[in-house]
Parts: sequence; C-alpha cells; structure tokens
Amino acid sequence: MSTPSADAASALATGPDHGRPVVPSTGVLRPLGLDEVRITGGFWGRFQELNATTIIDHAERWMERVGWIGNFDAAVEGRLPVDRHGREFSDSDVYKLMEAMAWEIGRTGNTTLEARLVALVDRIAPVQEADGYLNTMFGRPGQQPRYSDLEWGHELYCYGHLFQAAVARGRTHGRDTLVEIAVRAADHVCETFGPDGLDAVCGHPEVEVALVELGRYTGDRRYLEQARLFVERRGRGTLAQIEFGQQYFQDDVPVRDAEVLRGHAVRALYLASGAADVAVETADAELLGAVDRQLATTLARRTYITGGMGAHHEGESFGDDYELPPDRSYSETCAGVAAVMTGQRMLLATGQARHADLVERALYNVVATSPAEDGKAFFYTNTLHQRTPGTVAASDAVSPRAAASLRAPWFAVSCCPTNVARTLASLGAYVATADDDGVQLHQYAPADIRTTLPDGEVVELRVLTEYPADGHIRVEVLRGAARPWTLSLRVPAWAEGASVTAAGSSEPVTAGYARVTRAFAAGEVVQLELPVHARWSWADPRVDAARGQVAVERGPVVMCLESVDLGADVATARVRTDEPPLERDGAVLVPVVTAELDDAAWPYRHGAPNPPASESRLVPLTPYHRWANRGPSTMRVWMPVV
Amino acid sequence: MSTPSADAASALATGPDHGRPVVPSTGVLRPLGLDEVRITGGFWGRFQELNATTIIDHAERWMERVGWIGNFDAAVEGRLPVDRHGREFSDSDVYKLMEAMAWEIGRTGNTTLEARLVALVDRIAPVQEADGYLNTMFGRPGQQPRYSDLEWGHELYCYGHLFQAAVARGRTHGRDTLVEIAVRAADHVCETFGPDGLDAVCGHPEVEVALVELGRYTGDRRYLEQARLFVERRGRGTLAQIEFGQQYFQDDVPVRDAEVLRGHAVRALYLASGAADVAVETADAELLGAVDRQLATTLARRTYITGGMGAHHEGESFGDDYELPPDRSYSETCAGVAAVMTGQRMLLATGQARHADLVERALYNVVATSPAEDGKAFFYTNTLHQRTPGTVAASDAVSPRAAASLRAPWFAVSCCPTNVARTLASLGAYVATADDDGVQLHQYAPADIRTTLPDGEVVELRVLTEYPADGHIRVEVLRGAARPWTLSLRVPAWAEGASVTAAGSSEPVTAGYARVTRAFAAGEVVQLELPVHARWSWADPRVDAARGQVAVERGPVVMCLESVDLGADVATARVRTDEPPLERDGAVLVPVVTAELDDAAWPYRHGAPNPPASESRLVPLTPYHRWANRGPSTMRVWMPVV
Repeated sequence: MSTPSADAASALATGPDHGRPVVPSTGVLRPLGLDEVRITGGFWGRFQELNATTIIDHAERWMERVGWIGNFDAAVEGRLPVDRHGREFSDSDVYKLMEAMAWEIGRTGNTTLEARLVALVDRIAPVQEADGYLNTMFGRPGQQPRYSDLEWGHELYCYGHLFQAAVARGRTHGRDTLVEIAVRAADHVCETFGPDGLDAVCGHPEVEVALVELGRYTGDRRYLEQARLFVERRGRGTLAQIEFGQQYFQDDVPVRDAEVLRGHAVRALYLASGAADVAVETADAELLGAVDRQLATTLARRTYITGGMGAHHEGESFGDDYELPPDRSYSETCAGVAAVMTGQRMLLATGQARHADLVERALYNVVATSPAEDGKAFFYTNTLHQRTPGTVAASDAVSPRAAASLRAPWFAVSCCPTNVARTLASLGAYVATADDDGVQLHQYAPADIRTTLPDGEVVELRVLTEYPADGHIRVEVLRGAARPWTLSLRVPAWAEGASVTAAGSSEPVTAGYARVTRAFAAGEVVQLELPVHARWSWADPRVDAARGQVAVERGPVVMCLESVDLGADVATARVRTDEPPLERDGAVLVPVVTAELDDAAWPYRHGAPNPPASESRLVPLTPYHRWANRGPSTMRVWMPVV
Repeated sequence: MSTPSADAASALATGPDHGRPVVPSTGVLRPLGLDEVRITGGFWGRFQELNATTIIDHAERWMERVGWIGNFDAAVEGRLPVDRHGREFSDSDVYKLMEAMAWEIGRTGNTTLEARLVALVDRIAPVQEADGYLNTMFGRPGQQPRYSDLEWGHELYCYGHLFQAAVARGRTHGRDTLVEIAVRAADHVCETFGPDGLDAVCGHPEVEVALVELGRYTGDRRYLEQARLFVERRGRGTLAQIEFGQQYFQDDVPVRDAEVLRGHAVRALYLASGAADVAVETADAELLGAVDRQLATTLARRTYITGGMGAHHEGESFGDDYELPPDRSYSETCAGVAAVMTGQRMLLATGQARHADLVERALYNVVATSPAEDGKAFFYTNTLHQRTPGTVAASDAVSPRAAASLRAPWFAVSCCPTNVARTLASLGAYVATADDDGVQLHQYAPADIRTTLPDGEVVELRVLTEYPADGHIRVEVLRGAARPWTLSLRVPAWAEGASVTAAGSSEPVTAGYARVTRAFAAGEVVQLELPVHARWSWADPRVDAARGQVAVERGPVVMCLESVDLGADVATARVRTDEPPLERDGAVLVPVVTAELDDAAWPYRHGAPNPPASESRLVPLTPYHRWANRGPSTMRVWMPVV
C-alpha cells in the first residue's frame, strides 16, 4: 500500500469531519473518520490496494474512452447533443469516480490522483449554468428540457452523486471548487424543488441521502429540509405510471407507511439510506422505525444468503417474499453497496449489531465479489447459480449490464465499478465507532485506530487479525486512558461459541457486542475468538428455490462449488451432509456425488427422481467472492443434498 | 352452439382447402379441415362456444375502444401520426381478430360476424398504399420511414398476421377483398425483401409461416421462396445488437445450425413453425431435422410441465437448460399458441405422436388457462406459482402485459386474447388427419368427422367422449368403406395402461398410435380407454426450482393447489405422497400439512429445516387451467413434499 505523505495526512487531519462519509448530528454511535482508522493490510487492505493501483485508474480510463467524461468537454464546446455518449445518467459515474478519488486521496495523499481529480473538476466546472443547473443530457437546444422526464432522466440522481463527491472532497481536503459546484447545484435544487417549487421527486432516489450529508457538511439546513421534502413526497404517485408499476421507484406507498423494501433494489436502498438520515436529523422516530421495519422484513424474506438484494432481472427489483431464485439472482453490486450504506446508517442510529452484520455480509459476499482479482473486470449482477460457462467478455468491449454472469471490463450501464471504488476507498470508516463510553469495533481488519474520547483522552488501538481466514482478533492497546472505558467487539450472529479474553480471563460471548470495560493500560491485549469454520446453512422452507439444497458458510464468507474444482459441470452434483464440511490446509472440502442423467427425454415422470449416485469424493469449495477468476465455469452456492 | 346455416356450410364446403389452417403439399399426414371435422361439445366445444359468444366480441370491442382499429380510420382521414393509438404492432391484433372471425364464420356461418368482418376489411383496405405497403405506424410525414426499424418496428410481423387472416378467409369463403389486400402486400414484400432487395429480416418472426401458407393457398411459389429467404437469412446478424442480445430475435445462429430454441419464446416458436413449413415445401430434410432437434431439446430441458415455454420475464424468453422457476414462469399464452402451431406442423410432417402430445399439453394447460371462465379476461403470462393474491384488474382498465398474474380484460400489449380466439375458432383442424391408409385421431373431443379416403371412399366417424373428465373415447363408424383401412388413435405418453377395444377384442396399447385395421362397417365401434386418473409427477433433478416438490397431473390436465381450497396461503403447504392422490366425486384430493413459521428472522440457519407439521387433511386440487376464477388467491403447481 502507498503511504500517505506528511502533507496529505496533515490536510486530512485538519479537514472538517476528518474524512467521515456519514456524520449524523445525533445517534447512538459516533463514526470514526479516515484519519482515525487506517486499515493496514489483510483482506480489505488488499482490496484497498487493488482499488488504489488499478480500479480507480481503470474506471477513469474507461470513462475517457467511452466519452462520459468527454461529455462535459462537449458541453463546453457546444457539441451537445450531437457528441453526447452514454446513457442519461452517465454524469453520475464521473461523480462517483471523483468521490472515490477524493476518499483515496484522503486515505493515502496520492498526489498524482490529486492532480487528476483537480483536472476533472476543471472540466466539469464550466458546464454548470448560471443558476446552478448542471447536466450534460438536458436543457440545450436539441435536448429535452430540464426536468421534463423525472421518471427516467436521473437529473437529481446525478446531483446526488455530485454532492457525495463534494462531501468526500470537503471532508478530506476542505472546501474547493468541487464543493462550490455542489453548493450552487444544491441551492438550485432547493429553489426548483422547494416547498414553493415543483412538487416532484426524481425517478431514482439518491439526492436525498446526498442532500442530508451536504447539509451536515456545510451546515446549511435547507439541504436537509429539501431531503425531507423529497422523502415525504415519495410514494404519492407524483411520478407517471410505468409498465413496471410505481413500486419500481418506490412511488407506490409513502416511505413511513411501507412494510418492506420493494421495486428497484438500488433505488429502494438509496431511499432507505436517505430516509434514515432525514429521520436522524429531524429526530423522527416514526420514520426511523419505518426504515428499521422495512429493512428487517427485507432481511427476513427478500435477501440472499450473500446479503444480495434484488431477485428479478426485469426491473432490477426485489421479488415477492421468499422469492429468491439463485439462478436469476440479480443481486446488483450497487445494491450491495447501498445495503452497506443503509446498514451503516442504521448502525450509527441504533447501535445494534444486526446492522453491522448486514454490512459485513454484503461487503464480503457482494462488494468483494464484483471486482476480478486483477481489478479490471466486474460483476454487475451477482448470480448464485451459474448454469452455463458463458464466455469471457472481451477486454476492450462494453458489455450489456446484465447479459452475462462473467465479469466484464465495462458496461453500457456502468454504475457498479465506481460504486465499488468509492466504497473501498472509504472502507476504513466502517471499521469502528465511538460513543461516550468508549470504542466499538464492527468490522474486523488489521487496523490502527486513534481517537479521542469525550473527556479528551486519546486512545490508540492496533487490531491484528487474519480474519476471515481465521477468527483470532487481537486488539492491542497502544495508548490507554486513566479512567475506565469500554471496548466493544461485535460478535456476528453466526458466531456460536465465540469467546473474548481480557486481563487474563476468558469468557464466552454471544451475538451482539462483547464489552470489556477497563482503564486500559498501554500494552494490554483483548483477544476475540470467532469460530470461523465451515458450516452447513439451510434456507427457510419458503425459499422454494433453495429447497433440498444446502450452502456452506465459513465465518462471514459464503462458499460455492465451481466446475473448475469439480472437474465437471455442477448440474448433477449433490453433497452429503452427514458430517460438517472438512477443513484441510486452508481449503474447505465437501463430499460430492455426480450422476449421469438423460437430457433428451421429457423431464417430468411418475416416480420420484433417484438418480444413481457415483461414489462421493471430496471437492474443494471456493469463496463465492472469488469465483469465476479461473476462466468460464459453472457454479452453485446452493448444493442439492443426496 | 350456433348451427351453421346451409348457405355458410355450402360456402365452406366449396372453399379451397376446406378450412384448413395448414395445408402442406407433402408430409406423412394430411390435415382435415373445418368442413371435415366438427367439434360437437365437451371440453373444447364449451371453449369454442365461449369464443363464439364472448371472446371475439370482447376483443373487437376493446380494440375499438383503445383505438387500434381506429388507427386505420385515422390513416384514411390523414390524422396520423397524431391520432395513432397502441404499440407499433397493434395492426397485427386487428388482423388476428379478423383471422379468428374468418375461422369462426367458416365454422358456424355466423352472418352477423360475417358482416362485421366485411366492415373491418372495408376500413383497412383504403389504408393500403399503391405499392402494397400497409401499416399505420410507419412511412407518413411525422412517422419513421418504412423499414427503418426492423428490430422493433414489426412491419413484416404485421403482414404475417394479415396473410394468416387472408388464408383463413380464403379457405372458408374464397378470394375476396381481404385476400387481395394480402396478395398485394405479399407481392410488395417479395419485391422489397427479395433476392435483389433488402438483405434483412423482421425482428419478430411470423411473416415466414404466413408467407408459406399464403403461397400454398394462392399457388404463388414466390411467397414460399421469400419465406425460405427470410428463414435462411436469420441468424446471420443482420439485425442490430440490442441489450437482450441477438438471440432475443434468433439472429444469433442460423436456423439450421441451432441446437435448441432460445431467446424470445414466441419469436422462436413462430420461426420454428415457419422453418418447418419451408422445410416441408422444399423437401429440405436437414432443415426439418434441425427444427425437430431444437424442439426435442426444448421439450427435454426448457419446457414447463404445462407445456409452457419462456422462463424469463426479462425478454419474455427461454432460460438456460433446466432453468424453469415456477414463480417466474413467463409461459406466455402466445407461446402456448405458437407451440401448438409448431407441434401441429411437425405432426403433419412426421406423423409422430410426440408432436400431438405437445399440442395436447399446451392446449389444456396454456391455451385453456388464459381466458377467464366468463371469457372477458385473460392471462398474458401463466405463472405456475402465485405467491401473493394480487388484485383483480379493473374491468375497464388496460393492464401492463405482465404486471399481474391475475387475468385482465385487456393489455397494453394484447397479443394473447386474439391468439386464443383464432386458435379456438380453428381448433377442429387439430382433431384428426388422414393418410393413404386411413384416419388418425390426435386430439379427443366429441366430434363428427367426414372425409374421403384416397380411393374416393367417404368415411364418417362420430367421437363420443367426456375426455379429459374421463378416459373413455368411443368412436362410432357412421359410414364405412368396402376395403380395409386403418383407424389410428393417439395414446399419449402419460397413458400407461391404455387399451383399445375393437370387434369385440380388447388389447393393451402403449404410447404412440393404437391402430385398428378393418373394413369398418357402419355401426362398428372402436373404444379407446385412457387411464385418466390423478398421478404424482416429479421433475428431473436438474429442474432445481422443483426440487423436493411434486405436481399432480390427471390425464392431460395439470392440477394445482389454490389458497381458496386450502383456506390459507399455500406458502407453507406440503403434501404427503405415500398414496396416490385420491379421486372422489370428481374431485382430486391430496393430504396437505401446513406450518406456522417465523417470518421476521434471518432465513438461513445451521440446521436443516424441519418445520412442525400439522395433522394432514385432504384438500381438493383445481385444474390449473381453471385457477384464479374464484377471486384473488395464491397457488402452486409444484407442492413441497413432507
């Protein structure tokens, strides 16, 4: 990993809010910022390194190549709409790239990246119109008028990503041109869509969560009020009827009345994040309770074992309760990112470990699944069952967004790569929080943590772990405090049999937080032991598509069976579950039988199928997030049981 | 049922080809026409009656109301494109209605319907341009130019339905204005897309099958040659790349090279029908073999137990092999109609009973499922598992084509109701065929059959049956022949234990055709006994979505469990399969248990699910084709096994 320069570190330390993506003015937990937590290696350190060396560059290069960045130049040079490239929301991907760059600069002080970000800002700035409007798709002669297609135009959605980029920049660098652009655009949004303005919402939620954060950053409560208005307006049918139905963009039921997330999954989760933020800032317990209820029901009935959300390709949407087909799981990478956003906000608001559990599940099994090992190709959708090997996308071709389940270098709709990039760059912010009593660790990674308790005492911790390869989490106190404070360590819900050791005594701990309260002295160690071993996991019987099948999880990591390990298509593979999965030399192995089946006959018969099984043999499983890194394969997370 | 007037009957009898929808110039079997076979009651007689009294009227009324017929008036009056209503292919539904009317007039001689059809023709005729072009969507000032959007424009598709309407008219009435319109349009198509014309195909196959039949009817081999050209051109990438991929419109692989049906199901099946017709007319055994192979593989791996085809809502398309989710079965009604078309063509070409089996399965479980009992609402998609009761579509509202799984009166894309109407009106043509040796019965319905054997001898048969309520099929010879000939009776593949009785002796018969060869005298009876009783049916283990579940079939009819019979949501219902399903007083009953399950918890657990089962109780099943006729319900064809 790159090392931050002294200058950059100092810039970050003096930036407002210390590099925190989310800074609620109230809530149970206080987030720590990128200057307070540094991931120093391990699983996520490697992903951050991949992001730093490859993913951000890859995204920038592709957006230059396909002309999405060039759209801004074309606007300045009066070449629009003729020379416009990409879909109506392509501006937003440039902003997401800029957000990723800003967090990454904050994290590492990379000066080359700093220059590239500044250059991008310089190309975008002149496109902003005098009244603050900024979009390359609308409003010019030959283009549709501004805000004439709120259902599909994505103008406010694009602002949302602009605002988030500006917040990232402001909180890692301070107010600069990017922040000023965002402020002018936000003022324009408030004037246009305020209480006396257009009674309308955007077809794609996103501006809500971004307006709240821009308001938190700038201190301008108008932005919060505008976010509140957008949240309250939604669900009242101001958007036109479309074939997918108004639930597609959550305009079917008011946010505070809804029982479950529904419609387009990314839209639903961005909205939930924004609604949670609005609820926190306005002390609206009813609204926060609505988001909590919707999220809980969604997790109970509409979420894949990976934490993936979205069961329909059509409409990229949630399905009905328990409708979770592995072979048609949409589980868009962006929905994984959005679930992390929602989970983190609910964690900060409530302090409940179940929200950090969701963040962990989605990070390890959706966000980490998207990028290829080389960082140059991505999953847009994340299927749990690949029936055909498919073909590898050409490295120089744009792929349809969901045509293949093999990673592709870039997509016609390419929201996911930049979403992964901004998440990885800001990942340190998900590791730990503080409250009046002490420090909480939520996500386990080798990390250095340095924060100040409310009474002004500075504490420093070092986390050492190979998690999730194993479950040993060692927390060394580098700098203690004179008074007792509480170190809380999250115990995931799957971790039956966990224990914590502190001051020489060991205790079993259960799901939630293991709390150790002491006047920690420098050199003290707290050790959490999580039972990271492979286990069979079964689905509720109402998840019909997983009936008679079993999955394997190892710690937070979902495993899968890949044809490259089986030496055959996974279509007829079944596993024996008499014994737990075997762990040997770092590999997880399960006993698999295969069968020779007729594939030319009518497939419905009088007798129950009882295909002759081969001798079982031990076959290694692959972490789901690493599948399809060894060429085309077939794969399944849910394995039929003999 | 209406009785044909003497005039109409005589018009039909003297019409060319005697009311046959498909008249191959060669093939193993010769189709009988509507003047040779009359369905006289029973299951399909009731559907024909519903069609005659309600469905055709309903479709005409709706198309007047939504302006799709009015588009032709608007064209004449110069009000296009401003006053155009409906999607780009709405002309085709007017033509399908006209085809249904033509067959219905041929069947019953209904003089009111005759006047309505003539009136429709009079409104369409003046829209045809001097060179034969006819379409309300393209070519006028303010509209896109002709043939500028072959991917989505559906111009040739619309001609296809025009040609099929004209063939129906010609073969039940003789050449009239409708036929002349079609001939001018077909000439225009040949000039525009012939060997020296545009090297292109239509994004939606249909014109191929229609051109062959128009060629058979008129004797003009140019139409056949044009169909052959369209079939050979497809699969060579002349259509533009789209997000669904070129397999969506079968432009990915040449027809004779493909291994399985793929992409949009209706497109694939219309193309297969056309390719089969071209193969037969050009004695192209390779092409016929290709269709046979693709259809066989599709039946083995990509077809629902209902005969339904199309596993994806997105793209209305086939899925991968064995990807057949009951809860997302698209199984479009039109794909059922198209499967019937393809199956019937392959039956005529090969004489193999398996093709008639497909026709039967799709008729009883897809085509018959679409219309509501009152004939005023239709399924567009045919799900095999309804998870939410949904809401009944308003009787005066147009529904999105696939938004709900409850029948709706009309759709924004409303291809299905008219497709059902034309199929029901011409259903007599599927009942029986003849060859040099005698007569074959393929579909069982009470019917009167009168045909002439090649040596000029007239034979008359009367079929008496309550099939599929029971399996007794009695064939009375009303008029025999001096020389021996063969009566062949199809024995469906499911009918294990069937027997045939003739001349006092009874014999077991197996799947295929039971053949009785005699110099049948008037008054002789042949009795076929099919074992119509309820049976458990299991899916191949690779149909993952049906794993651990069982269906019930009774004769050709797939059954289902509906919440209105269970008295509860079907979500937790499981059945015991120790004994065969019970049949009592005409009902099929199965032992069902239900369970109380937590629906607020994370649904993936360590232990195998073993929900406590209630006492089992006998619950009646409903024929799948009759489900959702008693208000909103949840339903499943595949029932989990205890």
